[in-house]
Amino acid sequence: MSKITKAACIGGGVIGGAWAARFILGGIDVNMYDPHPEAERIVGEVMANAERAYAMLTMAPLPPKGKLTFSKSIEEAVQGADWIQESVPERLELKRGVITQIDASADPKALIGSSTSGLMPTDLQRDMKYPERMFVAHPYNPVYLLPLAELVGGQKTTRATLDDAKARLATIGMKGVIINKEIEAFVGDRLLEAVWREGLWLIKDDICDTETLDDVIRYSFGMRWAQMGMFETYRIAGGEAGMRHFIAQFGPCLSWPWTKLTDVVDLTEELVDKIANQSDAQSGAYGIRELERIRDENLVGIMQTLKGSNGGRGWGAGKLLAEFESHLWANAPKPEAKAGKDPLNLLEIKVNPSWVDYNNHMTEYRYTQCFADGSDALLRLIGVDMEYVADGHSYYTVESHVRLLDEAKLGDNLVVTMQILPSDGKKVHSFMWLRRASDGALLSTCEHLMLHVSSKEGKSVPPLPSVLEKLQPLIDAHAGLPLPEGAGRHVGQKRG
Amino acid sequence: MSKITKAACIGGGVIGGAWAARFILGGIDVNMYDPHPEAERIVGEVMANAERAYAMLTMAPLPPKGKLTFSKSIEEAVQGADWIQESVPERLELKRGVITQIDASADPKALIGSSTSGLMPTDLQRDMKYPERMFVAHPYNPVYLLPLAELVGGQKTTRATLDDAKARLATIGMKGVIINKEIEAFVGDRLLEAVWREGLWLIKDDICDTETLDDVIRYSFGMRWAQMGMFETYRIAGGEAGMRHFIAQFGPCLSWPWTKLTDVVDLTEELVDKIANQSDAQSGAYGIRELERIRDENLVGIMQTLKGSNGGRGWGAGKLLAEFESHLWANAPKPEAKAGKDPLNLLEIKVNPSWVDYNNHMTEYRYTQCFADGSDALLRLIGVDMEYVADGHSYYTVESHVRLLDEAKLGDNLVVTMQILPSDGKKVHSFMWLRRASDGALLSTCEHLMLHVSSKEGKSVPPLPSVLEKLQPLIDAHAGLPLPEGAGRHVGQKRG
Repeated sequence: MSKITKAACIGGGVIGGAWAARFILGGIDVNMYDPHPEAERIVGEVMANAERAYAMLTMAPLPPKGKLTFSKSIEEAVQGADWIQESVPERLELKRGVITQIDASADPKALIGSSTSGLMPTDLQRDMKYPERMFVAHPYNPVYLLPLAELVGGQKTTRATLDDAKARLATIGMKGVIINKEIEAFVGDRLLEAVWREGLWLIKDDICDTETLDDVIRYSFGMRWAQMGMFETYRIAGGEAGMRHFIAQFGPCLSWPWTKLTDVVDLTEELVDKIANQSDAQSGAYGIRELERIRDENLVGIMQTLKGSNGGRGWGAGKLLAEFESHLWANAPKPEAKAGKDPLNLLEIKVNPSWVDYNNHMTEYRYTQCFADGSDALLRLIGVDMEYVADGHSYYTVESHVRLLDEAKLGDNLVVTMQILPSDGKKVHSFMWLRRASDGALLSTCEHLMLHVSSKEGKSVPPLPSVLEKLQPLIDAHAGLPLPEGAGRHVGQKRG
Repeated sequence: MSKITKAACIGGGVIGGAWAARFILGGIDVNMYDPHPEAERIVGEVMANAERAYAMLTMAPLPPKGKLTFSKSIEEAVQGADWIQESVPERLELKRGVITQIDASADPKALIGSSTSGLMPTDLQRDMKYPERMFVAHPYNPVYLLPLAELVGGQKTTRATLDDAKARLATIGMKGVIINKEIEAFVGDRLLEAVWREGLWLIKDDICDTETLDDVIRYSFGMRWAQMGMFETYRIAGGEAGMRHFIAQFGPCLSWPWTKLTDVVDLTEELVDKIANQSDAQSGAYGIRELERIRDENLVGIMQTLKGSNGGRGWGAGKLLAEFESHLWANAPKPEAKAGKDPLNLLEIKVNPSWVDYNNHMTEYRYTQCFADGSDALLRLIGVDMEYVADGHSYYTVESHVRLLDEAKLGDNLVVTMQILPSDGKKVHSFMWLRRASDGALLSTCEHLMLHVSSKEGKSVPPLPSVLEKLQPLIDAHAGLPLPEGAGRHVGQKRG
């Protein structure tokens, strides 16, 4: 499978920095070139946001982070890279010059993507020696979370390049969407531009203010568009008769005199003031960093929600997230079940915003979730994987006893460890501890019992040898350990 | 507080039917008038979708459903109604005629809203005797889930009418947004129209197909717009320098020749065919009912996610949902803690799509969530409410023991019941059962221990008298009951 082994980012603002974050969190080393005196600070801030978001986004095993190196020149940055992403300011001459320089120094087989939001790839690749491997890969802010990249080729770009780019982006959780023909602004910015222009008229003419306009979007079609697009949504609106009916019903509106879009609004000083002031009134209570964090939490939550959609098969960006996680699991080094006298280290977890109450304390049932995820980690360790389950065998939890001893708080890093209590493999009886990583404080314990079940026979049976041979050494290693404090307890039992 | 006590819906298609569903699920009786021979069937289908969605959306106590009555005439339908919603087909003469008829028969103080998506309220209210109470209340499909209603007054509409309409809509979970000036298509459809028109050009010119266009939306700005609108999103893009910087940077694009919108695309037979065929290729694998269900699940999930956003304070449509739920709790009849020898009926829960795995089985930790919600229900019953907690007292769960006996599946209705074990009030020791409502099958049990804590004193203390006087009779009533099977167990203990 094609992948990205080393990346170069030329230009490191909000967009270039977030590309770098995507690569680094995907385990890819990045050379960054940006002459801006504050480039390192800006990229560092974007990285911090991205790491925070990823910690919330997925519990799948991210690879060890790639290394970020700041290079002194384009020539130096592109050495050894097989994906080079250009994100310099949006001026044709500048971008073309940079891309031509990249082309001259890079491996002729390296892919070269431009982050331009509107320039034509044919114009950008004009002076290249190897133009067939250059294309637009237009992402959306925040690049580290939003998965879309519009892939647009110029006249000299090969289709193989676009297909390859799409396949490689999938390995860092992105959705490459190939656009058939190059036009200025491609597809996404065409649509956004249309809304932006109409919106400016509505503000200028005092039909509404910026907050009202935003509310109209986010309390209605914004939520439709997060999961389906425009055509699929209207297909539903058409009812059983479908798309044709919808167009018949609503198409004629197009010739109604409903829009101001036949002209371009004049961005006078006065209009700019008006918009800026309305925006302050609307959102000024929050700082930009705060808005960024809220936005990212919401995007994470929406993607996680969509991951569980459609009967667990996933939908839209959530389906993509599930695929990315499968990729991460498949590429994670197989953990070795190392038998030893110490409790097993099973899991690290970060308390994310959707897990806490208004006091920022972790909700009661999330403790059970941590332990359920801990026992899942044990199962992976002993070879109970998707294949084993698909073959008709699995472990089911039948009983658990949880004590809540202290509060886990938003942002805490938690660690789950486990001692296996006397077990025969058909039963796995264990005791888990949930601790805060920073100071080792014990927050919760769980005594847990799983049964190995054959779905074909509909009853509990011993595990297959492939699993038992990994499990037995763990059982044996813990056999001589004393019973942990709290094991064998019933609810309300006095300590001691 | 103003509310809607009885509603009339004139016109019962997808829009009118969903208005009726909103009212009915909000506890409001509805008279429906629609001469369409299949009106009852269509409204029934919308109602079924709405009930399914509400069951997933909120665990707050919905009031007893309102009664739906089909009336034989407009005159009959509007009798006694204080909100009349007109949703007949989108033709000015027809709508004006219907609204004039409504006006003539209704209580002169009743509010009259039109669902028109584009006609001017001034034109609609022209022939009314009491035009000051007539306005546009333009909703979005599915009306039973999407909260927005654009409120637009005509020349004769009073501001008090719009304010009143907005306040009343809040009581059924809707967000009334008042538009300053009437224009055709108001705000939302202006924006949608702009995207639709630009989209048609992109399809016609083969820049992309409908699926690609939808993917461009839903993998990127669709997810931004579900939670913030356009201006707030761009404010972030502007960075610390804010909106003014953003406009300076991107404003000039407006005069670039990027858009086809200066002309209206010709909806030829050929273009309609093309769109319909592409839409079949994109979404044809799903039936319309299936797409509706997926859409509704996703909308529910997005709103629930946004409810937990911003440190639990809620954001956008999620904040609105939280406010609606507060309203429902405040208006729910206070449950009486009826002491008796039977276990307490605490909670009914529906297994929703985000709670199940790929087998449609409820995830392990959701059982704990059901019991946590059950013990919360006990707390509400004995007067531990927001006020009590804000005053510095609360119960904390310290220990729970859960057995998983059978699988809960997607869509199952579950019931939690509780027996209180010997407790002094400072400790509340209980045993809960989770059963499937349809056949009473026992799925899970939980033995549970809570401590009453004073946050000021930082230790466990007896509850205040107001709580103890409600709790004690429950403790006393259950004191003579035998210990339930499973109580006092430790993990792995043999039965019997």
